[in-house]
Amino acid sequence: MSKVFVNLGMTLDGCIAGPNRGPKNPLGDRGIAIHEWLFEQRAFRASLKLGEGGETGEDNRIVEGTIRRIGANILGKRMFEEGEVSWPEEAPFRCPVFVLTHESRPPWERPGGTTFHFVNDGLDSALGRARAAAGEKDVRISGGANVVMQYLNAGLVEELEIAIAPMVMGDGLRLFDGVDARKFELRLIGAIPSPSVTHLRYAVSRS
Amino acid sequence: MSKVFVNLGMTLDGCIAGPNRGPKNPLGDRGIAIHEWLFEQRAFRASLKLGEGGETGEDNRIVEGTIRRIGANILGKRMFEEGEVSWPEEAPFRCPVFVLTHESRPPWERPGGTTFHFVNDGLDSALGRARAAAGEKDVRISGGANVVMQYLNAGLVEELEIAIAPMVMGDGLRLFDGVDARKFELRLIGAIPSPSVTHLRYAVSRS
Repeated sequence: MSKVFVNLGMTLDGCIAGPNRGPKNPLGDRGIAIHEWLFEQRAFRASLKLGEGGETGEDNRIVEGTIRRIGANILGKRMFEEGEVSWPEEAPFRCPVFVLTHESRPPWERPGGTTFHFVNDGLDSALGRARAAAGEKDVRISGGANVVMQYLNAGLVEELEIAIAPMVMGDGLRLFDGVDARKFELRLIGAIPSPSVTHLRYAVSRS
Repeated sequence: MSKVFVNLGMTLDGCIAGPNRGPKNPLGDRGIAIHEWLFEQRAFRASLKLGEGGETGEDNRIVEGTIRRIGANILGKRMFEEGEVSWPEEAPFRCPVFVLTHESRPPWERPGGTTFHFVNDGLDSALGRARAAAGEKDVRISGGANVVMQYLNAGLVEELEIAIAPMVMGDGLRLFDGVDARKFELRLIGAIPSPSVTHLRYAVSRS
């Protein structure tokens, strides 16, 4: 059965981006440091066409597993717009991506297997369409924080995978801001430390 | 060489207590859930005289190790005052405790080996006295969050041990609020998952 999951990098103090975010600074100050480990991984480099090489250890194995399980993505509008200017011509998803928006816009097919579908009738609709598109594979709620929060609060997330970077942001974009924590419970189902990051995996259930 | 360390329980979103804290609710709403695992451990139960029994697995081994390494504690005034009313007659520290305060007050010796010393001339002074009292053992910056923040910002913390409880608070007392994250760096030196909590250990160095 297909699962709905979140997979994000985060600081020890719960930030997925730094302060002073803006169109020219989408990850905020020092935000790139949260994801530095990821850019070293062979599987991630291949998906973004960043060139040959990269690490092939445990971190890479985890990234490969994540890429392999995704049958469809759900993205917020802002994350789509930020990505639109920085992703290569071959957008890195290589599967259907459902963008939550208020506009009406026809699907946008990119070379390499990514098609963006624009959904303007809510969370449930986007998830239903993503599930149908994913088939046996899983649906990733890719972000941003606000979209993850909405799906958590709606009780629709089944797994939460967090890669904790060894850093504190102090001030930044907090993943769980606005989450109604009484609505769901976490149960640790996996923890894999690597020198660069700690991979935590939780099953999420409604309280 | 004696080390200065922090050891705290925290939620996945960086909270060490819940919302609505007050004199009658020192851990805030749902705050006790962060530490539930700890109250099950044999070593912790013994230190607080909570009675016989308790778990004796990996979590307990870690708690024993922490208790054993502490030669002196540093506490904030508020944490001291909150604890004063809830600790048993034999306060659980069983070693010298240095309380940061603005008052002048003579030492207060408790049965069981705990003596509270009141320090009104700042962080450095408290740490100097705690180091001298600890001898070969380590100095624990016990909290609260504001005191941990002050020692982190002063570059005086050498190790950070965080037990991440499988829960999100959404809103609460954040450990790293007000921390100047550009002043120090973390390096993961240990990660031990247990079903109830994930023990992360970082070396802290000045940036």
